[in-house]
Amino acid sequence: MQLTELSQTHRPTLDQALEAIRTREYWTPHPEHPKAYSGDGKAAFDALLGGRIELNQPGTDDWTGGEVSPYGVELGITYPHPDLDVLLPAMSAGTAAWRAAGPEARAVVCLEILARISARTPEFAHAVMHTSGQAFMMAFQAGGPHAQDRGLEAVAYAYAEQVRTPSSADWSKPQGKRDPLELRKSFTAVGRGISLLIGCNTFPTWNGYPGLFASLATGNPVLVKPHPRAVLPLALTVQVAREVLSEAGFDANLVALAAERPGEGIAKSLAVRPEIRIIDYTGSTTFGDWLEANARQAQVYTEKAGVNTVVVDSTDNYKGMLSNLAFSLSLYSGQMCTTPQNLLIPADGITTDAGHKTYDEVVADLAAAVGGLLGDDARANALLGALVNPDVRDRLEAAAGLGEVALASREIAHPDFPDAVVRTPAIVKLDGARKHWDTAGSDAAYLSECFGPVSFAVAVESTRSALDLLRHTIRDKGAMTVGAYTTSTEVEQAVEEVCLEECAQLSLNLTGGVYVNQTAAFSDFHGSGGNPAANAALCDGAFVANRFRMVEVRRQA
Amino acid sequence: MQLTELSQTHRPTLDQALEAIRTREYWTPHPEHPKAYSGDGKAAFDALLGGRIELNQPGTDDWTGGEVSPYGVELGITYPHPDLDVLLPAMSAGTAAWRAAGPEARAVVCLEILARISARTPEFAHAVMHTSGQAFMMAFQAGGPHAQDRGLEAVAYAYAEQVRTPSSADWSKPQGKRDPLELRKSFTAVGRGISLLIGCNTFPTWNGYPGLFASLATGNPVLVKPHPRAVLPLALTVQVAREVLSEAGFDANLVALAAERPGEGIAKSLAVRPEIRIIDYTGSTTFGDWLEANARQAQVYTEKAGVNTVVVDSTDNYKGMLSNLAFSLSLYSGQMCTTPQNLLIPADGITTDAGHKTYDEVVADLAAAVGGLLGDDARANALLGALVNPDVRDRLEAAAGLGEVALASREIAHPDFPDAVVRTPAIVKLDGARKHWDTAGSDAAYLSECFGPVSFAVAVESTRSALDLLRHTIRDKGAMTVGAYTTSTEVEQAVEEVCLEECAQLSLNLTGGVYVNQTAAFSDFHGSGGNPAANAALCDGAFVANRFRMVEVRRQA
Repeated sequence: MQLTELSQTHRPTLDQALEAIRTREYWTPHPEHPKAYSGDGKAAFDALLGGRIELNQPGTDDWTGGEVSPYGVELGITYPHPDLDVLLPAMSAGTAAWRAAGPEARAVVCLEILARISARTPEFAHAVMHTSGQAFMMAFQAGGPHAQDRGLEAVAYAYAEQVRTPSSADWSKPQGKRDPLELRKSFTAVGRGISLLIGCNTFPTWNGYPGLFASLATGNPVLVKPHPRAVLPLALTVQVAREVLSEAGFDANLVALAAERPGEGIAKSLAVRPEIRIIDYTGSTTFGDWLEANARQAQVYTEKAGVNTVVVDSTDNYKGMLSNLAFSLSLYSGQMCTTPQNLLIPADGITTDAGHKTYDEVVADLAAAVGGLLGDDARANALLGALVNPDVRDRLEAAAGLGEVALASREIAHPDFPDAVVRTPAIVKLDGARKHWDTAGSDAAYLSECFGPVSFAVAVESTRSALDLLRHTIRDKGAMTVGAYTTSTEVEQAVEEVCLEECAQLSLNLTGGVYVNQTAAFSDFHGSGGNPAANAALCDGAFVANRFRMVEVRRQA
Repeated sequence: MQLTELSQTHRPTLDQALEAIRTREYWTPHPEHPKAYSGDGKAAFDALLGGRIELNQPGTDDWTGGEVSPYGVELGITYPHPDLDVLLPAMSAGTAAWRAAGPEARAVVCLEILARISARTPEFAHAVMHTSGQAFMMAFQAGGPHAQDRGLEAVAYAYAEQVRTPSSADWSKPQGKRDPLELRKSFTAVGRGISLLIGCNTFPTWNGYPGLFASLATGNPVLVKPHPRAVLPLALTVQVAREVLSEAGFDANLVALAAERPGEGIAKSLAVRPEIRIIDYTGSTTFGDWLEANARQAQVYTEKAGVNTVVVDSTDNYKGMLSNLAFSLSLYSGQMCTTPQNLLIPADGITTDAGHKTYDEVVADLAAAVGGLLGDDARANALLGALVNPDVRDRLEAAAGLGEVALASREIAHPDFPDAVVRTPAIVKLDGARKHWDTAGSDAAYLSECFGPVSFAVAVESTRSALDLLRHTIRDKGAMTVGAYTTSTEVEQAVEEVCLEECAQLSLNLTGGVYVNQTAAFSDFHGSGGNPAANAALCDGAFVANRFRMVEVRRQA
C-alpha cells in the first residue's frame, strides 16, 4: 500500500482524533458491538493454537511459549526467541528512512496497523480472553475497540506534538539600515532510539498500545516484550505491524517481539541496555520503581499499583449508588488497576434518599447488590471472567482473615471451561479510625493494594476523616481512580480539593452506566502521572513529547 | 493591577508569542538596542551596591552575600537567607489560588513580571555584567531582551500546553435505543509542587528564565537558588515577581529566593527535599548527573557541559568563514556553553574560494582573523568581557601545554576596571588522527570540555574522519552546538545525518552576522535534550508538559 493511499484513507480519521482530543467529547471510530465485525474470530483463534507465530525476525535463535489460558486451555503457541545482539542492531537499521518519512507518514502507517487490527477484533478478543482471563465481551471491547482507541489517541498526540514545530522556517532579523540577517531553518523530529514495551498480563493491548504507537509514531523502533502469560495479543499486533511497515516500504524490523523463555526475566537485562532509550511499563510497583531507578539511559513511563478509594458521604440515589458500585467491584473480578478497593463509610452512617443508613446497613446493602448482580451464574461468568493467576486467588483467600467478612467470595462454575477459576468479590469490614492509619508504619490492610476481587468497607469517624485518609492514601500509595458520593456541595468541593492537590482522577456520584473503573480514550485521562500509582497519564502531551527531539539545521539564506 | 487589566495588556503579546513558536519566524517584543530603553541603569545599579535586597520573605534568618564582580568591584549586597522549614511551607500556601486562576491568568501575570523586568533592562544589564563578567553590550542584550524572550517563550509553551485540554467537556455516548450515557467533565491543570531553579554564573537570567517562567506559568511555586557569584540579577527578578504577584492578588511567596552562605552548598540538600518536585539546572556535568540520579522525587531539567565541534571541509567564502569563526571564539571569551571548541580540519587542507589552503594555513589564517578582530583593545574589551572566575584563567594557562600554540592568549587591560581579567582566546593545534581518539580511555584533550577561551585546531585525516570524530564526541560528551563549513552536497548531507542521529543542533556555512553560539528564542532550539550535554531543550513541549498534570473531575450529567 502506497503512502499516498494510506494518507487518503486515514487522514480524515487522524483529523477527527485530533479534534476529539481537543474537545474531549465522545468519539470513536471503533465500534463496540461484535455485530459490527465480520469474520469468525473463534475459528481464527483456534487455528493459531498449537502453532508458531512466524515473524521472520532477524536473530531468532529458538522458539518459546507456554501460555495457559486462565480458562484452563493450553495455547501451545510458540514465538520466536531473539538473540538481542542480532535483533537490536537490525531494529535500528530502518530508523533513518522512518525518520525521513515525517510525522504524517508515520501516523497513517500507524493508523493502517490499527485498522487491520480492528478488522481482526473478534480474533483478538479470543486472544485477550485466553491470556488475561477477561470474560469474552470485556475482552472484545477493552481488548479490541477500546485498546485501539487508546492507540489511536497516542498517535494523534504524537502527530500533534511533532507538527507544533514547522518542518522549515525562513528567519529574517531586521538590522536597521543594513540588510537583515537571514537564515533558512529546517526542523526534524528525531526518535530517541529503540523503545521497549513491557506488556502486562491483564490488559496486554489496552495498556500496551499507547506506548507502542506513541513511540512508533515519533520515529522510534519498538521492541515488544509481552508478559509471559499474555504473549499472543501482542505477538499478533507485532505481526500486523511488521506486515504494514513492509508493505508501506519501511523496514519491518521497526517493530519486533521479544518473547522469553520461562523464568528468563529478559525485561530486567533489556531495560538497561544502551540501545533502549524509551520504556513503557505496566505492572507491579516493585519492578516499576526499579525501572525508574535503574533504566537511567531511557525515558521511563510506568503504570504501577495504587490504592483506589471511594468516599461514601451521602447520596440522593441510594439504589443507583449500590448497583453502580456493585458493578465496579465485580467487573473482571476486580482485577483492574482502576477497581475501587477502599470504600470509606462514616461509622455513624450516611444520609440517603432512602433515609439514614447505618454503616452496617450500607455494607449489607452493597453486599446484597453484589449478590444480586452475580446471583445468576451465566451473568456472573459474563461479568467476572477468570482469575488471571493463582496469586489472586491466594490473596482473595487470605483477605477473609483480615476482618469481618460482609460478603464472602463464591466460586462459580464455568459451563464451557471447567478449569477456569471464577470467583465473586469479597467485601471485608475494617476499622478506619484515625489511630489505625495515622501512625508511622501502620499495618492497616487498606493501606496496601490487595489486587483482585477484594474490597474493604472501611468505617471512618466522619467524612472529614475519610478525606484525610483519602489524601494520606493517594500521597503514600497512589491511586488510579477516586470515587465519591455526596449530596453536599461542601463535601464535593473538599473531595475535589484533595484530588486536585494529590493529583488523582475523580468520579462523582456515578449511579448509572458509567463506572469509576472505566475511562474513555479521547476524553478521559487514565491515571494522572502525578501520584505514586503512575508517572504518566494516558494520554497527554507529556506522554509523547519526550519520545523524540527536534533537531534544527540552519543555513545562511 | 487587576487580572482583567493584565489580560487586556498582555494577551496580544501572548498571542504573538504563540504564533511565533508556531511559525518560528523572527519575532521579539523586547528591543535589543539600549536606546529603546529609558532610565539610568548605571545609577540604579550603583544605588544597590552595599545595600540589602529586601524581599519580605517568611523565614528569613540571616543576611548573606559576597559577590565580587569579575570586573573587580565588590558588590557588597546582601540577600535574605532562608530558614527552609519556614519558607517552603509558606511557598505552598498560595498554590490553590494560583491553580484556580487558570492558565491565562498565570500567563499574563508572568508577562507583567517580564514587562517590568524589561523596563528595567539597563539596570539588569549592569547586574548581569558585574556577576557574569560579560561585556556591557552582551550583558544588556543576552541578559536583557534575549533572556526575556526565552522567558516569554516558556510562558507561551506553558500556556499552549495547558489549554490543549479544554477546561470542561460534555460527553455523551450513544446507547442505541436507550438514553445516551452523559457525563460532565472538568479538567484542571495542577502544578507538581515547588520548583527549584539552580542558577548559573555565566547567564543567570538567560538560562534561568525558561525554567522559572515555565514552572510558574504551569501553577508551581518557584524557589530561585542563584549561583553564589551571580545572585543579583535573579534576586531582582524575584523581587519583581513578588511585587507583581502581590499586586495581582496572589501570594508573593509563590516566588522566593534562596541565597546561601559561602560554602553552604544549599542546592544539594534542597534538591532532594520532598517538597521540591521540579528542578531546573544549568552547570557542571558532575552536579547535573548527580541531580538526575538523586533528585528522584522531582522532574529534573539539566543543561550540562558538552564539547562543541565545527567541521571545516571546504568553503566558498573563506574570509567570511574565518571572520565568523573568529567572532564565535572571541565572544564572552569563549565562556558560552555554545562556543565551538574543536575545529576539525583535514590534515591535507581544504578547498576554498581563495584556493587550496593547507591545515597550517587555515589555522594561521584563523589566528590572524582573531588577532585582527581583537587587535584594538577597546573593541576587544567590548567583545571579550572578563573571565568569570579564576578556574577559567587556570585552564587557559594550562591549555598552552597541550600542543603547539597557534594563537597565544593575550592579556588586555580594561580602562575602567583595572582588576578585570580580560584574555583573548588561544588556539592550540592537536593531532586528530583516529588512533588518538578511537580507543577506549583515550586522553585526547579534545575529548573533554575545556570551558573558556581555548579552542583546538584538530588535524583530522579526512572529512570522513572528522564526521566520525564528530559523532563520537556528541555521543560520548554531548554538544550544545555543531557547525560545519562545506561546499559539497554530499558532505552536507553526511554532517546532517550525524547531527540527526546523534541529536545535535547544526549551523551550516555561517559566514555573516549570525554565529553558531547564538540562538534566537521563538525560532531556534537551544540544545536538543537528546545528547549528553542537556536532557532538555529551550523551549519545546517536553520542557513544559510534565511540570503540571491534568486532573479530571467527572460527574453524571
